[in-house]
Amino acid sequence: MFYYQPIKNKEGLWLAEEHYNRRYIAKTESVFAQSNGHFGVRAMLELRGIDATPGMFVSGLYQKAQDGEVTELVNCPDVVELGMYIQGESVNLDNVRVEEFQRKLNLYTGELWINILFRTQNGLRFLLRSKRFAADFEKTLFYHKTEVTLLDGNKTTVTFEYGINGQITNSGTSHFQKTECRVYGKEIMAYHGALQDDGLEILTGTCFEKNQEQQDCSYHLKRRSIYAKNSILMEKGDAITLFRISHIQEDSAECKDVLEEKLEKIQQQLKRGYEQAIANQKKSMEGFCQRAAIEIDGASLQEKAGIAFAQYQMYGMDPAYTNRYSIGAKGLTGEGYKGHVFWDTELFILPFFVAEFPEAARKLLEYRYRGKAGAKRKAEDYGFQGFMYPWECAKDGFEETPLYAALNIHTGKANKVWSGIKEHHVTADIAFAISRYYYWSNDREFLNQYGTEILCETANFWVSRAEERNERLEILNIIGPDEYNEHIDNNAYTNYMAAYNVKLALKASKETLDSPYVKKMKENGTLKVMQEKWQYFLEHIYLPKPDKNGIIPQDDAFLGKEELKDIEKYRQSPVKQSVLLDYSRDEVVDMQVLKQADLVMLFTLFPGLFPADVVKKNVLFYEKRTLHDSSLSYCAHAQICAEIGEMEMAERFFAKALETDLCDNPQDSVDGIHAASLGGIWKCVIAGFAGVSCDEDGIILAPHLLGHWNSIKFSVMVQGQKMDCFMDKENISLHLCNSGKSKEPVTIKVQGKKYILKDDLHLKYGKE
Amino acid sequence: MFYYQPIKNKEGLWLAEEHYNRRYIAKTESVFAQSNGHFGVRAMLELRGIDATPGMFVSGLYQKAQDGEVTELVNCPDVVELGMYIQGESVNLDNVRVEEFQRKLNLYTGELWINILFRTQNGLRFLLRSKRFAADFEKTLFYHKTEVTLLDGNKTTVTFEYGINGQITNSGTSHFQKTECRVYGKEIMAYHGALQDDGLEILTGTCFEKNQEQQDCSYHLKRRSIYAKNSILMEKGDAITLFRISHIQEDSAECKDVLEEKLEKIQQQLKRGYEQAIANQKKSMEGFCQRAAIEIDGASLQEKAGIAFAQYQMYGMDPAYTNRYSIGAKGLTGEGYKGHVFWDTELFILPFFVAEFPEAARKLLEYRYRGKAGAKRKAEDYGFQGFMYPWECAKDGFEETPLYAALNIHTGKANKVWSGIKEHHVTADIAFAISRYYYWSNDREFLNQYGTEILCETANFWVSRAEERNERLEILNIIGPDEYNEHIDNNAYTNYMAAYNVKLALKASKETLDSPYVKKMKENGTLKVMQEKWQYFLEHIYLPKPDKNGIIPQDDAFLGKEELKDIEKYRQSPVKQSVLLDYSRDEVVDMQVLKQADLVMLFTLFPGLFPADVVKKNVLFYEKRTLHDSSLSYCAHAQICAEIGEMEMAERFFAKALETDLCDNPQDSVDGIHAASLGGIWKCVIAGFAGVSCDEDGIILAPHLLGHWNSIKFSVMVQGQKMDCFMDKENISLHLCNSGKSKEPVTIKVQGKKYILKDDLHLKYGKE
Repeated sequence: MFYYQPIKNKEGLWLAEEHYNRRYIAKTESVFAQSNGHFGVRAMLELRGIDATPGMFVSGLYQKAQDGEVTELVNCPDVVELGMYIQGESVNLDNVRVEEFQRKLNLYTGELWINILFRTQNGLRFLLRSKRFAADFEKTLFYHKTEVTLLDGNKTTVTFEYGINGQITNSGTSHFQKTECRVYGKEIMAYHGALQDDGLEILTGTCFEKNQEQQDCSYHLKRRSIYAKNSILMEKGDAITLFRISHIQEDSAECKDVLEEKLEKIQQQLKRGYEQAIANQKKSMEGFCQRAAIEIDGASLQEKAGIAFAQYQMYGMDPAYTNRYSIGAKGLTGEGYKGHVFWDTELFILPFFVAEFPEAARKLLEYRYRGKAGAKRKAEDYGFQGFMYPWECAKDGFEETPLYAALNIHTGKANKVWSGIKEHHVTADIAFAISRYYYWSNDREFLNQYGTEILCETANFWVSRAEERNERLEILNIIGPDEYNEHIDNNAYTNYMAAYNVKLALKASKETLDSPYVKKMKENGTLKVMQEKWQYFLEHIYLPKPDKNGIIPQDDAFLGKEELKDIEKYRQSPVKQSVLLDYSRDEVVDMQVLKQADLVMLFTLFPGLFPADVVKKNVLFYEKRTLHDSSLSYCAHAQICAEIGEMEMAERFFAKALETDLCDNPQDSVDGIHAASLGGIWKCVIAGFAGVSCDEDGIILAPHLLGHWNSIKFSVMVQGQKMDCFMDKENISLHLCNSGKSKEPVTIKVQGKKYILKDDLHLKYGKE
Repeated sequence: MFYYQPIKNKEGLWLAEEHYNRRYIAKTESVFAQSNGHFGVRAMLELRGIDATPGMFVSGLYQKAQDGEVTELVNCPDVVELGMYIQGESVNLDNVRVEEFQRKLNLYTGELWINILFRTQNGLRFLLRSKRFAADFEKTLFYHKTEVTLLDGNKTTVTFEYGINGQITNSGTSHFQKTECRVYGKEIMAYHGALQDDGLEILTGTCFEKNQEQQDCSYHLKRRSIYAKNSILMEKGDAITLFRISHIQEDSAECKDVLEEKLEKIQQQLKRGYEQAIANQKKSMEGFCQRAAIEIDGASLQEKAGIAFAQYQMYGMDPAYTNRYSIGAKGLTGEGYKGHVFWDTELFILPFFVAEFPEAARKLLEYRYRGKAGAKRKAEDYGFQGFMYPWECAKDGFEETPLYAALNIHTGKANKVWSGIKEHHVTADIAFAISRYYYWSNDREFLNQYGTEILCETANFWVSRAEERNERLEILNIIGPDEYNEHIDNNAYTNYMAAYNVKLALKASKETLDSPYVKKMKENGTLKVMQEKWQYFLEHIYLPKPDKNGIIPQDDAFLGKEELKDIEKYRQSPVKQSVLLDYSRDEVVDMQVLKQADLVMLFTLFPGLFPADVVKKNVLFYEKRTLHDSSLSYCAHAQICAEIGEMEMAERFFAKALETDLCDNPQDSVDGIHAASLGGIWKCVIAGFAGVSCDEDGIILAPHLLGHWNSIKFSVMVQGQKMDCFMDKENISLHLCNSGKSKEPVTIKVQGKKYILKDDLHLKYGKE
């Protein structure tokens, strides 16, 4: 069930938390986090509360705090907090009675509204209302207006404290080595935090709407922090309004902005006021809204909001201005997975950018090219060739997977994390993503400069990774996407993906003869040798086929394992990974139980790879054994169920996917939203229900609209051109827009037939 | 006013916080902190609260977290916390209604009792009662029993969480670089935190009194932390009792204890139960109580508790088992002053140990000898000779004073901390302390091994520090104890102390001819040169004398400065250093205003240095200009007022001194108790009111009992022998105890007359 209420009104589409429920404090901080690609601020309430988990994250601001630690996205100082004191006692969320409450996020503008009506222990009633946003038009700025009104109670002096709280840590780990705080012009507080390589600069300008409060303001230092203090005598009906603008910027050698200019800009913006700023934000966000718009006639408001939420969050997590960073598993919304980049980015999130913002997609792939040294290093460390991409990486592309995780319930020791050591498919996933970006964009220049090299070197990895056994090439001792089956041989997903990777390399090496990489390989004579090896690999790699029952073995051992008897208990459990509370990791490995989609993932990537009946049979077989303990699972299942026409299941899984962050489980998403699942939602809608995919031959359309959907309307970018799509249960209408240059015709395949789209195309489709 | 209620009952003397007041949460954590010399645990309530400031500190466990940071006493993991959850919602101090509350500390046994009766938001009434102590009999152990009873409400499942919370930081700075957590035997949680040089080991054994709860226990890892979880179905009237024993030990190369033995010991102690443990504690603490006992007939219970509190805290802050560490400005009770060691230790705290626990006093002075490299280095850095002791030091004796502190209200930048650079009297203070230890103890061996070297090398420092000017030696550009007068010339306190230091050196160098240091200096021919320099210094050093009005100038400039017009405003302010909110530091320096006792300090150290009328005149003159913004001020004033017979003032200042930690200002002591002030309280009583001091000629007695005191009874250690003292308004009775060997006669001076104490001595004293 959704915990959040979707609301549609003239200001846009919102998700709202309508009640004050302390169990959801931290979850909603993640879900309503505001990101603009440069930084993300969790949706903390202004008043402190014991369940709060404050967080601000800046794209690319990673650090390994100390030798024994793991590189992670640094949790930055809190600029949102508003301390309130009456007669020396702090007024906080836990010691007031909250009488009315609403926290809501505008999915079009990224604006957050908070209303809290509360009564203090000494009977004063206050209304706190705030509005804030991370600016889209000026990526370093965060705007925040807070109004506090005394509704009831005697005249009283209220002390407000606000500033830059640098005592925030990553769950107890502090990153900033040296902080310097000061005040400029009695108006702007400044924080400089040094990291090993770079650092962070925060400038917070503040003003009250009525100037008299400004004069009583005093500034104070705390450790790592600076704050201002105002004591204001309030009578019933009085409202004070604090407007804060925080400039948040990486303090690196590359940033040459002049301090004076920044201070002046903040001062100007303070004078212009919040309303002017939000007007700018609305205008700025229109571009995103228009490009990404999906109109579904018949969809519930909940579905619409869930889809818009996914798009808003994905847009906000992407550092579109640079190819130096990529997208972490929680975007910029929490400490989860330490901000690391996984295969999730390429397989789940990238498709949205490929289809909607190809220029941003290209940067995300360039990030992988920049990380090639890390991939090379990992291959060397493990005794392989080429590029072996790290399972988790951060800033510079080197392996960052932590070594240990949860406790082993029997031994009392922490379990080893095997993914970093044995989960190798990420390398093929990146190759796959490059092919999809290229097919959608036709960005030949990217392929020449970066893509071909990655494709060839990842192929070289697979060649070295495979072993001769049983007169064929096998990939042994590996982990596939389904992490409940460790140390297995011939994971079907991995083997097929590796083969595709090698195939892509062979093709690219023949077709991009003008690429610097191919030229070089040709010159030094290795190209031919490599191509021969790839050819041999493709001829000999073992690709598991359906057995006599039509089931493709997930790996060599899976079908021989015992079933988990009481599997429904864990499938129904509201707690993720509850099976590990009863069984050790090793015991789980010995049973027919999946954490997440594995072969199903493969089916979603290659729609026509197996006959429809085989796909269906396998989906049903494996789903029964799947706990969906990974947030990557439901969306993949929803997509594949649409493709195999199991629309009832598709609808059910889609609803589950929409709920991944928005459900009423207060524990989910506490440490950040599930970025990949959001990408998966978009994929369900566009690749699954609208049925849009793309391979080397062009765009393929195979709509499977949900039963209650009448039609869907959206646009995608194809070969640099915007293609407007409309589909209802029988018709497909396409329109190619390209206001500037002459249009490139697009090849469209529907139900096996090819069409050429020049301007408009209207087709009927139906049961084959 | 006292915030804490003194209680005397059959279990001992207590200080109690009788009401739940959130403003005092953190203050009482400091005041009721439990220390055993090895570690100190703040008196956190078990239930989490937003105003809590958890802290545990281990003697000598200092670290500089990173290059830009200052070395500090590391705030260690929390072993006290008890998480309570009902229906997934945390029950914490801020969201329950506290109906009854008591937190009290037993000043004889160091046991802390907490009773909280609270009602949760869903109407359940619980009584939480806990008892705990830091073991005196086994310095690594902390015992803690918590009982939770459901008094009212429906049957409900309560989830308890407890363990080792390693997410604690020093106000946002984390120290442990790598932590490893695990469980041994499903009963003992283990935490290993690595520091740069050493580390920390915590083993926490837990058990419930009824065994069934034990079985449902599951263990979990959080970042840097481990915790256990039990869900227990409670009916009205049910009580659950959790008994925890934490072993807390520095994890250094020197610790060779075997893990298995430690685990076994914890298991045994768990079985024996809390009652057995507290019985051991009582027995163990008897020794301290007997040695330190001060019985005052006529004193109020408040005075008695204040004095007992001072003694308990001083006993707990002293790492009596080692000479590697000393006592920080807040003992082991908070992060204040980063655990650094100041002159406070030698001049305020050491006298208590010299008179009551001379073996511990010796170790504290050995610590200064161990730190001689730091003192040498500082002298070199500043271009001086000999030992120039750091203003603040931590583990290894090097200078640790931070460079910057609070904001300058005009420039917006942080102020420089000048004490580390210019406050030099600490060097003479240490020399003075050595003399007093030697005169009380007659520990010739200490003098030979360590004392003489320190006395001579500190004297060398002063010789190099003084400058020829006005045909005399002057000490220019310095800061005295009174830190509101910076960059001054010829601070009277410093000049007199320097002269005394040099005098001590000259004497020691002549009297300890058998000390290795003197032998060496003699051999290499420098002794004579040094002695000549000292002689010259003593003949030429400028020692300020009373001016024509009888006022000794605090420094060359002081008497020429303007008075601070509205000084009473700041003298009455409940906020310390409130003058700095209106004036910048530089402005304060230009006015006749003192932070704390300066010349008054000098008078307390040398009772007969000036004629009584001069002392009196100066005390009254300077007190009027003193804001007492340092906690070192009231106690020094109380002592000197007793000596000059201003008993009304003495009583007033003594009351203020007793209040330093115990007053009702909720901000005071939040970051730790005022260790020096506690020593100052003891000095008021014994050196001031009982009038016991000691110089090279022996013990001097000059009682000035407070008006309402009839008599005082206590013991001090003189020349290794216990001397029982009794004084009333007219009589002095002394008794020398020495159960073992034959007694050394002690020279006693009363009103200028000398007596020899062999066994007993009864004297009358009165107005001279």
